[in-house]
This record gives sequence, structure tokens and C-alpha cells, in this order.
Amino acid sequence: MKTGRVEAFSDGVLAIILTIMVLELKVPHDPTLAAIGGLWPVLSSYVLSFIYIGIYWNNHHHLMAAADEVSGSILWANLHLLFWLSLLPFTTGWMGENHFARWPTIVYGFDLLACAVAYYILERRIVSTQGEQGTLARALGDDFKGKVSPFLYLSGILSAWFIEAWVGVAFFVVTAMMWVVPDKRIEREVAQEDQTD
Amino acid sequence: MKTGRVEAFSDGVLAIILTIMVLELKVPHDPTLAAIGGLWPVLSSYVLSFIYIGIYWNNHHHLMAAADEVSGSILWANLHLLFWLSLLPFTTGWMGENHFARWPTIVYGFDLLACAVAYYILERRIVSTQGEQGTLARALGDDFKGKVSPFLYLSGILSAWFIEAWVGVAFFVVTAMMWVVPDKRIEREVAQEDQTD
Amino acid sequence: MKTGRVEAFSDGVLAIILTIMVLELKVPHDPTLAAIGGLWPVLSSYVLSFIYIGIYWNNHHHLMAAADEVSGSILWANLHLLFWLSLLPFTTGWMGENHFARWPTIVYGFDLLACAVAYYILERRIVSTQGEQGTLARALGDDFKGKVSPFLYLSGILSAWFIEAWVGVAFFVVTAMMWVVPDKRIEREVAQEDQTD
Amino acid sequence: MKTGRVEAFSDGVLAIILTIMVLELKVPHDPTLAAIGGLWPVLSSYVLSFIYIGIYWNNHHHLMAAADEVSGSILWANLHLLFWLSLLPFTTGWMGENHFARWPTIVYGFDLLACAVAYYILERRIVSTQGEQGTLARALGDDFKGKVSPFLYLSGILSAWFIEAWVGVAFFVVTAMMWVVPDKRIEREVAQEDQTD
Repeated sequence: MKTGRVEAFSDGVLAIILTIMVLELKVPHDPTLAAIGGLWPVLSSYVLSFIYIGIYWNNHHHLMAAADEVSGSILWANLHLLFWLSLLPFTTGWMGENHFARWPTIVYGFDLLACAVAYYILERRIVSTQGEQGTLARALGDDFKGKVSPFLYLSGILSAWFIEAWVGVAFFVVTAMMWVVPDKRIEREVAQEDQTD
Repeated sequence: MKTGRVEAFSDGVLAIILTIMVLELKVPHDPTLAAIGGLWPVLSSYVLSFIYIGIYWNNHHHLMAAADEVSGSILWANLHLLFWLSLLPFTTGWMGENHFARWPTIVYGFDLLACAVAYYILERRIVSTQGEQGTLARALGDDFKGKVSPFLYLSGILSAWFIEAWVGVAFFVVTAMMWVVPDKRIEREVAQEDQTD
Repeated sequence: MKTGRVEAFSDGVLAIILTIMVLELKVPHDPTLAAIGGLWPVLSSYVLSFIYIGIYWNNHHHLMAAADEVSGSILWANLHLLFWLSLLPFTTGWMGENHFARWPTIVYGFDLLACAVAYYILERRIVSTQGEQGTLARALGDDFKGKVSPFLYLSGILSAWFIEAWVGVAFFVVTAMMWVVPDKRIEREVAQEDQTD
Repeated sequence: MKTGRVEAFSDGVLAIILTIMVLELKVPHDPTLAAIGGLWPVLSSYVLSFIYIGIYWNNHHHLMAAADEVSGSILWANLHLLFWLSLLPFTTGWMGENHFARWPTIVYGFDLLACAVAYYILERRIVSTQGEQGTLARALGDDFKGKVSPFLYLSGILSAWFIEAWVGVAFFVVTAMMWVVPDKRIEREVAQEDQTD
């Protein structure tokens, strides 16, 4: 199977996840500024998850650009990633509606952690197809951001649990910021690969 | 009509079905672990249906890859399949919200059975266009999984009806597991076909 | 602008309309057969609209295949058609929930009529670009189905208004049946066009 | 990264925004004309936003056709635009449900303003990649509509605030009308560019 169709399907799912998240932003009945002001926790959790979906869409594209073809196991690893991402509208809505309370924040962090692990599994599946000298393996290099993210999510979860929910949220915001800077490494390797061919 | 556009439309519908199913996972009002714990039947029925949509997406792709072109009757056979799949968010939600009670489980099984029958009809329409010596006919071979699935769904429906809903659910889980192993047969035949050309 | 991107966008909108219609099929709280039996008006109105979206998707594809390129006015004529189609989930839900009562049935018929008129406008825009000797003009020929449909919808609306809602519904069902037979004419002309080139 | 995939993803998001807006059009319980007549503010705000999404889809296509490739900063500028557009179902629903009351109308205008600013940023990012002599820069020329729109939105916001909500709505309607006339300039330049090559 070509990577094109997996990309198109994943793009579709990510576009829908991104958009239905806004359905959690329930239209208030009162036409007052106060009514919309009360929505700030839902709105800001929406902004955070919007950025995360953007990050995953971007990184997913780079990953697939480095893959040559898609086997059955890569396909299911990809669906596994989409599953955890598809829970984001739910975990985002729960955290937002409860004003970043402890348990919703922990569950949100757990969802982010599961996405990161699922992404890592997908990455390893592709690397194992190409061998350790393949395009992706060389592109990833030491993969600093990929390796540090799960620990940041875990720190966020533990902080929300034992210290204060807000500290946990801060971890998730910082990790998102770290990723918004696009992943130049893979881009560069793929470009080199294309030149060599 | 080329198969490309039917694939793109089917992909779109499947991606949306996959994603709106999560809307049945209603955000609980309480920020407690108990509140989210109470969602386990809805969540686990979501996981099961997510896997089924993944299976259909995967098999549908292999089917369309083996088809050469799309006639009017293939088009409507495809829409017929999408119709039964589009009911999955409803039957999944009903089964989950009622904690796998008898009737919702039976109706869920009936939906799976209808999907399997619709898939079989689509398969036969494509085979009849190509003739019994065509790419798809040879690829399918004895089509063990395709033939046994309807009977497994039927067994699940009858078990849920006369024995216990949980036995029926077990049948649906086992059938899903059987399909997660990707359908190597068609993939192989198409590859051979390509080499021969 | 190439027709490809308009097709892709229209496909996306049609796929979403098709799928969110099922959201009107609210999950009942009781796990009884009676609860699901009470949904038959919503379910059958869903089936009818599902078929209509299928018809429009199919005809739209044939129309776009006959178009050479997309001007600004064709683009807005296309968005105008999508607008009336996008109201189908609403009019379908209203008719279904009210068990095919008079006014909802009339409004549903009006929506179908508006879709037919919008489709006709789109068709004429494309024909006027190509001239009366163009691919589409020859393909349409006397366009029997296209010309008779608005009158069937109108008859349905008037029947629902002055006789009985069910008579109106019968008109909408019959018109759908008439269209399910795929439009061979355009398909044939385009094929001939391709051979001539 | 090629522009193709960014276009496909943006198309998907725009198609979904367009379609889920209709979910704000809640199915009334009564089967009376009065019940549907009471929906006119929601329906007319839906029509206005439908037209705006159509305008953005159209202009976005012309913009991407003029772009050569997509850098990381263009990608995030694009996601930024999609973010403000994704809030349209919410702001549209709030304005419609409150019969074009003051604050909802102001917030709706602010959303339109934010979309216009985000579109402008995206435009400048692409221009800065190509240089002031690039395809897009020449295509835009003095960019009258792009420069006047933010001021029209601002005037609408201020009118709704200090005069009357309806005056603000009139500004948003007039601005939409101005844009429905397709942007010939970019189209022309790209066509010339193609001829020169």
C-alpha cells in the first residue's frame, strides 16, 4: 500500500478531530460578555489541543514522507495513534468544563502521554522496515524532542496529581511550545535523500 | 468512473464515522475518577467499533485496489455498505450507554451482520464485472474469513438473545481479532498482477 | 481553476452531510426493542435522505466530469447547491421526529425542490461556458429526469399540503427511485468525447 | 512540503466547519410553520457564515495556487487562520440564537476581523518567501479588498457597540457581498506566470 492513502485518511481524521472539538464550546444562552467570559477555561483548553493536533499533523506528515511504503503493522500502529488523538475532544472538553480540576487534567495528560507513546511505536515500526541505516533512522538522529516529551507529560501528570493541577497544565503548554518549532531534522534528511537519488 | 473517487468519498465517510463515534462519549459533569470510571462501557464499545471501522477501511482499500473500474451497480453496492457502517455510531452508543444489555447488543450484532452482507454483495459485484478468472476472484481464493464472519455474527446475535449478552459481545470481539490480521491474499495477487503487466 | 479541487471539496461536504444526518438518530435511553421501534420515522427519513445524497454525489460527479474548467460563477452555483443540500440533515430530522407531519414534510419537499433548482442552475452555468454544442449539452439531451423532478417535488409539496402528508412522501420516494438508475447519458457522451480526442 | 497537502487539509477543515454549522440549527419539537419561522435569526446567520466560508475557501485556493512551497511558518500561519475560522460555528450560533443581540454581534465581528488579520499574515508570509517581485506580490497589486475589509469589520464592531447591533450586521453583509465577486487579480497573474514559464 502506498503512503498516500494512509496520509489522506489520517488527514481526514485529524481535520475532523480538530473541528468537532469546537462543539464542546457550547453556545451560551445569555447574550452577555459575562456569559462568554465564563467560557475561558473551555476556550483555552481548546486552543491548547488545537495546537497539539497541529503539531501531530505536521510531524505525521514528515514521518510519512520518510516512509517508503505501508505494511499491515504500520497501518495498525497508525490507527492506534489516531485512536488516542480521537479521545482529545473528550479529554479536552472534560478538562475545560471543570476549569482544569485535578482529575480531568491528569486524564488529559495521560491522553497526551498515550499519543506520544503511540507516535513512538509508529516511528519504530517504520524505522524497523527501513533498517537502522534507513532514511527515517538517520533523520531522527538522537531524537531529543521525541525522547523528552513522554517525560514532560509524565512530570505534568505527577505535578497535577501531587502538587497542583495548574503546574501540570504548565508542563503541557511548555511541551507544546517546544514542538511548535518545526522538526527540521527529518525535512533535511529527506531533502538530502532526494538529492542523492 | 475511476475507483479513485469512490475510494476518496468512502475514506471521507469512514473517517467521519470513526470520529463522530467519540461524540457519544459525553463529557461528565463531575471532575472525579468515578465519573470517568462509569464511562467504561461506552469507552469499550467505542474501542470495539473503532477497530471494526479500521478493519473495513483496510479491507475496502484492498477490494478497491483489485477493482478496475466502477459501474453504477458497484457504486450503489458501495453506498449500501456505507449506510450500514454509518449506523455504527448509533448502535455503538446504544450498546455502550446500556452497559451491553440484551437488545442493544443484538441490534449491534445485526448491524455488524448487515455490514458483512453488504461487503459481500460489493465483493460479488466487482467479481462479476471481472469474471471468475479476474484479479479479485483469484485473490479471494476460498475467502475463509469472509465466509465465516456472518456465521460468527449470527452466533453472537443468538448467544446474546438466548444465553447472555456478554457471550454475544465475546463473539464480536473474537471476530474483530480474526480480521485485524491483514488480508495478505488480495495484496499478494494484486502485486503479482502488477508484475505480469 | 481545475474541476479536481471543486470535486474534492464537494465530496468532503457531501460525505459530512451524509454522516452527520445519523446524529439526528438520538440514542434512546431504554434498552428495549420498543425504544428502537419508536425510531422508525427518524430511521426511514434518514434512509430516504441517504439515498438522495447518494444520487446527488453520483450525478454531481458526472456533471463535473463533463465540465472542462471552473469559473467564479460555476463555483458559487456549486456552493449554492451545497447550501441546500447542507439543510437536509435539519429538514430530515424535523420530518422524522414529527412522524412525517404536514409542515415538516412540506419543508422537506421544499428543500428537495431547492436542491433540484440549484442543480439545474449549476448545469446551465456549465452548459453556457461550453456552448450548446459542448460535451454537457449533448450529453444531457432532452434531460427528461432533470426536467420532470422539480414537478414531482412540487406535486409532493402540494399533495402534502392539501391531501395528506403521506402522499407527498410517496412522491419523494418515487422520485428517488427514478434517479437511483444511474445517468447513462452523460457517461456515454463523455466516453465518446474521450474516444474522439 | 508541497502546497497540495496543506490545501487538502485546509479543504477538509473548511468543509467540516461549513457542515457542522448546520448543527446549530436545532430541530424544533413542534411540527408547525411558527416553529420553523422562529428559526429565522439562526438560519440567516448560518447563510451569512456559509457565504464567508465560501469566500475564504475560494480566496485560500487562489493564495495557495500562487505559493510555491510551504515552510514551517506558512504552515502555522495557515493553522492560525483555520483556528479563527473554526470558531465561526460558535460565534454564528451565539449571534443567531440571541437574535443578533449586541454582544454576540460584536464577538461575531471580532471573529471575522481575526480571520481577516490571520489571512493577511498568511499572505505576507507567502509574499516574504517569494520576495516583493514574486507571483503573489504582483498578483495582489494594491490589494484594495484585503486592505479595506478589516476596517469594514471594525466599523461593524463599533456600530454594533455604540449605535445598534443591526448596523453592525449590515457592515458584515456588505463586506461579504464585496468578496463574493471572485478575486480576478491573482487568477490573472498566475495564468500569466504559467504562460511565461
